[in-house]
Amino acid sequence: MIQRLVVIGVGLIGGSLARALKTACAVGEVVGVGRDARHLAQAVELGVIDRAATLTEAVRGADMIVVAVPVGSIGGVLREIALDIADHAAVTDVGSVKGSVIEGARAALGRRFPAFVPGHPIAGTEQSGVAASTADLFRGRRVILTPAQETRLDALARVSDMWAAAGAEVLSMGADKHDDILAGTSHLPHVLAFTLIDLLVRTHGSGVFELAGTGLRDTTRVAASDPVMWRDICLSNQDAILRVLEQYQTDLGALAEAVRRGDGQWLQDLFARAKHARAGWVE
Amino acid sequence: MIQRLVVIGVGLIGGSLARALKTACAVGEVVGVGRDARHLAQAVELGVIDRAATLTEAVRGADMIVVAVPVGSIGGVLREIALDIADHAAVTDVGSVKGSVIEGARAALGRRFPAFVPGHPIAGTEQSGVAASTADLFRGRRVILTPAQETRLDALARVSDMWAAAGAEVLSMGADKHDDILAGTSHLPHVLAFTLIDLLVRTHGSGVFELAGTGLRDTTRVAASDPVMWRDICLSNQDAILRVLEQYQTDLGALAEAVRRGDGQWLQDLFARAKHARAGWVE
Repeated sequence: MIQRLVVIGVGLIGGSLARALKTACAVGEVVGVGRDARHLAQAVELGVIDRAATLTEAVRGADMIVVAVPVGSIGGVLREIALDIADHAAVTDVGSVKGSVIEGARAALGRRFPAFVPGHPIAGTEQSGVAASTADLFRGRRVILTPAQETRLDALARVSDMWAAAGAEVLSMGADKHDDILAGTSHLPHVLAFTLIDLLVRTHGSGVFELAGTGLRDTTRVAASDPVMWRDICLSNQDAILRVLEQYQTDLGALAEAVRRGDGQWLQDLFARAKHARAGWVE
Repeated sequence: MIQRLVVIGVGLIGGSLARALKTACAVGEVVGVGRDARHLAQAVELGVIDRAATLTEAVRGADMIVVAVPVGSIGGVLREIALDIADHAAVTDVGSVKGSVIEGARAALGRRFPAFVPGHPIAGTEQSGVAASTADLFRGRRVILTPAQETRLDALARVSDMWAAAGAEVLSMGADKHDDILAGTSHLPHVLAFTLIDLLVRTHGSGVFELAGTGLRDTTRVAASDPVMWRDICLSNQDAILRVLEQYQTDLGALAEAVRRGDGQWLQDLFARAKHARAGWVE
């Protein structure tokens, strides 16, 4: 049971976590912190948080602190709260990149760093904001924790329990592995979709969508995601994203070469391999 | 009113068209033709077609002939039926590429070519086969007709009426323009998705999907599409696909360069532009 949950950044993820824990009766009080007072008032009105407070006021005495802001802002938030974190508190984040967040947290938190449990729920939609939050966003989803060597075991256990109470399946792995895999499964698909939409509209104008089907609609759904969040992710997972982008460019070059030489067998083999692999996933 | 509709290739598209026209009471008899007898028996059982027949038997005396086979097989089918097409008949196809199909049809049909109305319904799912066909697949969808100079106006009007009866909105444009736009809105997204899945599984194994969210699932839905159909499309729209692939490669290169130099503003601008453009589409 969490006595006081502090959610810093009451958006889709922070708001959904608060809702899920309230629904599961796994939390006493939920205090929200954010830059936009109207937004926080909306969160209170929706019953997502019990009250809004300043950073310092909220964090003092809290036993669970969730930093749910874009990756590029996590370090700054941790620096602001470092001196106010209670001895028994656990602090976690929900950022899509873990290596650079851990580095930033170590620098920001100093002797409080062992309270920090780096986390990443593999959940979300292309929407953002507290109005889009739901109590079941994490149900059946995976949450990856990437503890550092210094991470306190009791903090790790409590963050893990929190996500389990929200309905998620919790996994643990190294931050490097996380960032490498997510660069491929999440970061690359997002930049591919943003780039595709931009190319189509630049070439054909916005009327191009009138000649598009459900394939393009689904393929580019993630291009409706928050630009600041994705800017931060690209900057924070630079190396892994560049590696997978380079491999993708090489693969696309080989595909173009096969199209150019009219190599139907090569194309059919690739497409069949991909179809087969994806069918295994969906089952 | 169509007296006898012949559907050559009773799959998702051909089967859905037959269902839609039956539901709209816009067709007398539906005769199906295909290579697989069990498949045709299933189509009869499902009530999609009234009976199966050989190509020649079906086409003689038919007033509407729909060739719903992969793009690479259309020319061969037209060559087989050329001598049996009735004077008053209209012939159309549903291929995703129009320029090369028109060339093939002109060569295959000879003096019957004016009966041919090149068509492309912008509809479908990643599924295939008659079992996936539905009467409402084309409802509210666009169908593009790309008549040649020789195309008979009465044939054009009857094919247009047929698609309208199936619930679609019918547009007309030049084949070159169609192939250029569809290379971007449909063919490129498909090859991007096939390539992405193949890269991920090759790099991380099939367990990679356990760390993937709904973003990747939607982004790659089209990678479950039929490999032979997409091989044919790549080979038939070679030039336009190579052009848009080259532009996409250039754009991805610029993105990688921005990530490398840590240019957050460039990235945020691109993502915001794409998000804005896509929001306009969805509304």
